[in-house]
Amino acid sequence: MLRPLAITMGDAAGIGPEIIVKAFRDAAQQLQGCFVVGDLAALRRAAQWVRGVGELPLPVAVIENPAEAADMPAHCLPVLPVVDLARPVPPGRISAEAGQAAGRCVVWAARAALRGEVAGLVTAPLHKEALAAAGAPFDAFAGHTELLQAEAAAFLGQSVEALPVRMMLANEELRTVLVSIHVSLRQAIDAVTLENVLQTLHITHAALQAMLGRAPRMAVAGLNPHAGEGGLFGREELDIIAPALARARAEGLDVHGPHAPDTVFMRARAVAGQAAEFDVVVAMYHDQGLIPVKYLGVEKGVNVTLGLPLVRTSPDHGTAFDIAGTGRASASSLIEAVRMARRLERP
Amino acid sequence: MLRPLAITMGDAAGIGPEIIVKAFRDAAQQLQGCFVVGDLAALRRAAQWVRGVGELPLPVAVIENPAEAADMPAHCLPVLPVVDLARPVPPGRISAEAGQAAGRCVVWAARAALRGEVAGLVTAPLHKEALAAAGAPFDAFAGHTELLQAEAAAFLGQSVEALPVRMMLANEELRTVLVSIHVSLRQAIDAVTLENVLQTLHITHAALQAMLGRAPRMAVAGLNPHAGEGGLFGREELDIIAPALARARAEGLDVHGPHAPDTVFMRARAVAGQAAEFDVVVAMYHDQGLIPVKYLGVEKGVNVTLGLPLVRTSPDHGTAFDIAGTGRASASSLIEAVRMARRLERP
Repeated sequence: MLRPLAITMGDAAGIGPEIIVKAFRDAAQQLQGCFVVGDLAALRRAAQWVRGVGELPLPVAVIENPAEAADMPAHCLPVLPVVDLARPVPPGRISAEAGQAAGRCVVWAARAALRGEVAGLVTAPLHKEALAAAGAPFDAFAGHTELLQAEAAAFLGQSVEALPVRMMLANEELRTVLVSIHVSLRQAIDAVTLENVLQTLHITHAALQAMLGRAPRMAVAGLNPHAGEGGLFGREELDIIAPALARARAEGLDVHGPHAPDTVFMRARAVAGQAAEFDVVVAMYHDQGLIPVKYLGVEKGVNVTLGLPLVRTSPDHGTAFDIAGTGRASASSLIEAVRMARRLERP
Repeated sequence: MLRPLAITMGDAAGIGPEIIVKAFRDAAQQLQGCFVVGDLAALRRAAQWVRGVGELPLPVAVIENPAEAADMPAHCLPVLPVVDLARPVPPGRISAEAGQAAGRCVVWAARAALRGEVAGLVTAPLHKEALAAAGAPFDAFAGHTELLQAEAAAFLGQSVEALPVRMMLANEELRTVLVSIHVSLRQAIDAVTLENVLQTLHITHAALQAMLGRAPRMAVAGLNPHAGEGGLFGREELDIIAPALARARAEGLDVHGPHAPDTVFMRARAVAGQAAEFDVVVAMYHDQGLIPVKYLGVEKGVNVTLGLPLVRTSPDHGTAFDIAGTGRASASSLIEAVRMARRLERP
């Protein structure tokens, strides 16, 4: 018996509602037990946008609590309407109303997950500027991650600083966890500290241990070309990364490296007929990890927030305002995010 | 009628001789018109190492000038013995003799290419420490590129500074040219200057124009995540890269970007049934370009030196001392380097 899984609608002016409808329509089996936290009218409108010629739109059913999702027939979209937009928001435009509605859906789902009422959250994309335009409390948060950190900290009675998180990007072949994300490359180099690397290893180990049911084999990429080539092209490997790995090994973690960044991802790639050497690569900065994950195509990439006391995954793309309302957006990454959330779920 | 193409033996203690023998044995058609610049005994020894059970070793034939390569029968290895090692060098060990022999082969082939006697050079790997141990003049050069720059500058009567070069990495799907290579990531950021970016675009445009027979569509990667997201994660895109691109465009070059580094390589990927948006991606640092080129496997990667008045390609791997002498090394990348050199050849 699957526990209910919450999918938050995201920004109603973006592609979130459309890809949610497509996912329920095209991947009914994987979406079993899922429900949408969102606005009823926005989802009904999206069902019209994505229906094929001569087809009926996917039926949208209202539910009152997560448990009802279990009894929903396939090819029907269960919505728990925690928000009610006063009027439809135009697709592809920043709107304070859509930003606020998206934020409220995330907060509702986060609290349900923290209380154990849902197995986790899959979040459709929100728009940072719309969230900023939504006013308090949402304008204090850069995005989903910060909002979820704040909710988790409040729930646990801890400070946000006590809940460090890391982003994991994963597709069918490769998992990578990033030491830092949305900062300049110069700042990313400064963020390569013994504490940050070690913390990334702790968070990665704990999350993948739960996911795989065994200790993960973790590879760590160097920062510099050829992992510094013995100090010739930078000393961060010798001065920071190797000592962090030594500490992690002393604690019993299965860590390898620092390895040359240009070949470590290839070695961690799980493809048919070829066993990967590692379960995950810890990358020193955003693009080091994201370039290989995205190289084969973004459709199957999934974003996982590690370190929080809840399961949260999301598709590896944004609101795509340029195609919102056209019904053209692909639901592949959202469907993968649902599958990933199910695999991360704790018993 | 193909002009003769010189393959330099590389360090005799590395896998160079073995992969050369394998290439002539396994890809006779592609290797037509090629000859080896090297040591006869080292190549005869390698022919023994790679022969299969019950097979005869590939015959090694001595030639006296490049033109003789054209008349060589298939499945025969033509060697122009410009060096003569006094005794066999042990595989997998740094040796001044092997370093010096490797250097002399490169110098000989570079001069032949500059004089137009050969179509170009394909260089098997040399070992930097062996080259350093070889003494003057070789210990003044970090590797092939610097040695070739010096030869070309001397030939043209110019300074080395007047001959800027860039490394291009290419496989069947993707080409990338690097603004900088073997420096720390911090130094690579400092090397992102208007002059260096613009020079990279000039060199890339000229080389690919010759190769494709038309102006290349060049994409330029940003330095920072999301190409800086409008200055939010770094200002190099706004202050340096975009102005360099504007200058290049004003000169008539077909340049695009700066694009988000994590998706630009995917967009430049040429795969069956999917046209690539760009012919090449200009990458801001070593791993940005090398991670996607190597992600699918190093066997087919080729290194091309752009900017010199000669054609030079090389396999995308080193001397692999750990497996030298075992006959296990793959010749795939060397064979690709030969194919690439043929495509770069000027009529």
